[in-house]
Amino acid sequence: MEMKMADGKTIILRLEIDTQFAQFGLAATAIENAKGDIVAIDVIQTDRNKSIRDLTVKITGPDVEERLTAALEAVPGIRLLHTSDRTFLLHLGGKITIQPKTPIQNRDDLSRVYTPDVARVCQAIHKDPSKAHTLTIKRNTVAVVSDGSAVLGLGNIGPHAAMPVMEGKAMLFKQFADVDAFPICLDTQNTEEVIAAVKHLAPAFGGINLEDIAAPRCFEIESRLRKELDIPVFHDDQHGTAVVLYAGLLNALKLTGRTLSEARIVVCGIGAAGTACTKMLLAGGAKYVVGVDRPGILCCDDQYDNSMWQWYGENTNPTGLRGGLKEALEGADVFIGVSAGGLLTREHVMSMTKDPIVFAMANPEPEIRPELIEDIVGVFATGRSDYPNQINNVLCFPGIFRGALDSRAPVINEAMKLAAAEAIASVIGEDELNRMYIIPSVFNTKVVEEVRRRVILAAQQSGVSRRQLRE
Amino acid sequence: MEMKMADGKTIILRLEIDTQFAQFGLAATAIENAKGDIVAIDVIQTDRNKSIRDLTVKITGPDVEERLTAALEAVPGIRLLHTSDRTFLLHLGGKITIQPKTPIQNRDDLSRVYTPDVARVCQAIHKDPSKAHTLTIKRNTVAVVSDGSAVLGLGNIGPHAAMPVMEGKAMLFKQFADVDAFPICLDTQNTEEVIAAVKHLAPAFGGINLEDIAAPRCFEIESRLRKELDIPVFHDDQHGTAVVLYAGLLNALKLTGRTLSEARIVVCGIGAAGTACTKMLLAGGAKYVVGVDRPGILCCDDQYDNSMWQWYGENTNPTGLRGGLKEALEGADVFIGVSAGGLLTREHVMSMTKDPIVFAMANPEPEIRPELIEDIVGVFATGRSDYPNQINNVLCFPGIFRGALDSRAPVINEAMKLAAAEAIASVIGEDELNRMYIIPSVFNTKVVEEVRRRVILAAQQSGVSRRQLRE
Repeated sequence: MEMKMADGKTIILRLEIDTQFAQFGLAATAIENAKGDIVAIDVIQTDRNKSIRDLTVKITGPDVEERLTAALEAVPGIRLLHTSDRTFLLHLGGKITIQPKTPIQNRDDLSRVYTPDVARVCQAIHKDPSKAHTLTIKRNTVAVVSDGSAVLGLGNIGPHAAMPVMEGKAMLFKQFADVDAFPICLDTQNTEEVIAAVKHLAPAFGGINLEDIAAPRCFEIESRLRKELDIPVFHDDQHGTAVVLYAGLLNALKLTGRTLSEARIVVCGIGAAGTACTKMLLAGGAKYVVGVDRPGILCCDDQYDNSMWQWYGENTNPTGLRGGLKEALEGADVFIGVSAGGLLTREHVMSMTKDPIVFAMANPEPEIRPELIEDIVGVFATGRSDYPNQINNVLCFPGIFRGALDSRAPVINEAMKLAAAEAIASVIGEDELNRMYIIPSVFNTKVVEEVRRRVILAAQQSGVSRRQLRE
Repeated sequence: MEMKMADGKTIILRLEIDTQFAQFGLAATAIENAKGDIVAIDVIQTDRNKSIRDLTVKITGPDVEERLTAALEAVPGIRLLHTSDRTFLLHLGGKITIQPKTPIQNRDDLSRVYTPDVARVCQAIHKDPSKAHTLTIKRNTVAVVSDGSAVLGLGNIGPHAAMPVMEGKAMLFKQFADVDAFPICLDTQNTEEVIAAVKHLAPAFGGINLEDIAAPRCFEIESRLRKELDIPVFHDDQHGTAVVLYAGLLNALKLTGRTLSEARIVVCGIGAAGTACTKMLLAGGAKYVVGVDRPGILCCDDQYDNSMWQWYGENTNPTGLRGGLKEALEGADVFIGVSAGGLLTREHVMSMTKDPIVFAMANPEPEIRPELIEDIVGVFATGRSDYPNQINNVLCFPGIFRGALDSRAPVINEAMKLAAAEAIASVIGEDELNRMYIIPSVFNTKVVEEVRRRVILAAQQSGVSRRQLRE
């Protein structure tokens, strides 16, 4: 998951107003003068002499909160009891809860869900371990696993600080796809220890979503777990990003009259996400892909310390292009940036073919701002929600795990990922497709349905489904 | 957790009745003749020629289901479509679910619980790690951890088959004490690997409930985790049993006019539970405790291979008693059995002091059946729900973890366990206390409240509380 900066926030101010000396209007004026926007007022307590009120205030800009606090404290007869922030309030005590599916109302219930009758269920699973998929939460439960080493754009903040992201992800799993997801933040960043921990805790789960684990460790961890576990293991930062980007690209190519196999594609920033995206492009039939990173265009003739670059040079750039980003982009159809803000210039884009496709996904600042090339670009996409065409992982992970769990597949394979991307792209009808709308909104409920349907089908057709389809 | 056998079960029979040839009455007669008791009928589908009905039938005894099935299949015009069992139906897809505390209804919600705004919460925790206790699920979440090596009375059935028990436990945590608990069944039975896995997954959790781990491994695992983690680690099979037993004993002593410090106590079966019970008795002030296991009375003069026996011999039996169970019981006030069914005889009990206290906790068959000594025993308790005075762990673990989480204590120490036991005992008023009622029902809601209150107090008084009390 990648980060973007907040443009504004809501704070809640609890004020005690001494009604003999001050009136609420004074507080309201002070707040408005400090550029706060009062959006709600709740009276908490009131008596003859004083009144306590919660004011919900929208603020924008870096110093508003400080100025606002100072302004209020300067009003005689008004005391600022405390300030809370809606985002922090939403996080109090965490964001998810664990609920029994049925209440235990009497001894009969107790004896069925617990001792002694539960023993019969245990024995049934002991006799036939595949029954764990029907008689336990394994059927519907995914672990969201991180070691806290590459969280959002914040970097290595550790497992405790990573929890709010993983809890948020668990909320999205539930809300969008009715998948039960539980956050597991591991207190180790040792590759072998992470692998061992995930393997050991796997029995409760029907799938593992790896999240925010630094490269190159994330590759080893994912590939080993894929081999050693019989449930899907999916590193969302790689494959989730790749699936959604590929979905957007399918529609962008269609819209501009290009084909994947003929398009000249430049990928800028060859890390975990860039590599995963490229693997999907190649699996989908792309032929002319060129990677650019610090050494310039990656090429099979060169040797790199970085194993991803080495792989990249050996598996892309079939025409042996040399040089830097400038050389790579001359005559290219597609720019895919997963690198850093501001790397791309208007001149770069002008050197591409007509109506080029630019996916500038760096966060929080894209490789180029769309307003700089609006007149010359064919299709433009970013990772941000404040521009059209947001490439957002939330479009992929709920539905792809829903499909994987429902087909009881032991893996999420290339066929399932391609199917998920095609499903996301397909949600936008031919008649709706336009340069401002190549990718559906995360709140479009058709996305999960369609991703699930096609992923189940792909699991069956690729021979990994372990369960009869029930659409 | 220990197991008792089911006395009966409920099955659901789905019948298709060809209404031209047969009537429902024929099916009902066949079921009743086979000793099934029809308790509910649901019509699923009906048309001119046939009717499909679900019959909920109570059955008792081992072969009833087979006889009943055969009897139904012999009725012409009636087809048994399938049989399901209410307990298994309750387990379909597992027994717990993970829910977001707030819905994500729009982009504003999404940006608060997830990217980009969640980053501020992550940073706050990164800056002050103790904030994990307020801003993540850690505040209210316990891991129920097992390696599946000693599940119920079933033995080493492995982590997948252990899941239904741990899920059941998670249900009880929630229903009785509003604690969020998640089942972690580890796919390893190696002591070091279990310790490493639990340490690594600890950040999400505010406490660890170890469960159904075989002795002697469970001791090493618990003591190491207690040392190496800063959240409570509690092996319920040891301490939960000990707390509830101690609670029952407090009331039994009071009722029969004895004191703990003077009572002569015999513990039969020196395993994990027997040792934990004894440690509590000693901590509570008991002086005359004697342990009996296969070598006979454990004594400091002897050497044992078993480290628990060695500890036991060195720390109990102050008068140097020698011999077997018979010798141990002569003139004893209390028998505590955590051994095997049928070990205790009426003669044994007759050799004890007048109105002896007998806690026969072996499961499913107690050390002696109460009907054999009803006329000579003072107070009798078992682990079974079909006799009075059930010593049930459910009385302890929800409340003790509730108190530990609310006081944010890094441990559950002896003072907290003693407080929990005294709380459980105190729920029965002086005027209610009688030989059939020394321990409250698991459905008595006062139990959790009182356990929580006293555990918080004990945490404060023993200096381990990390949070201001809020009753």
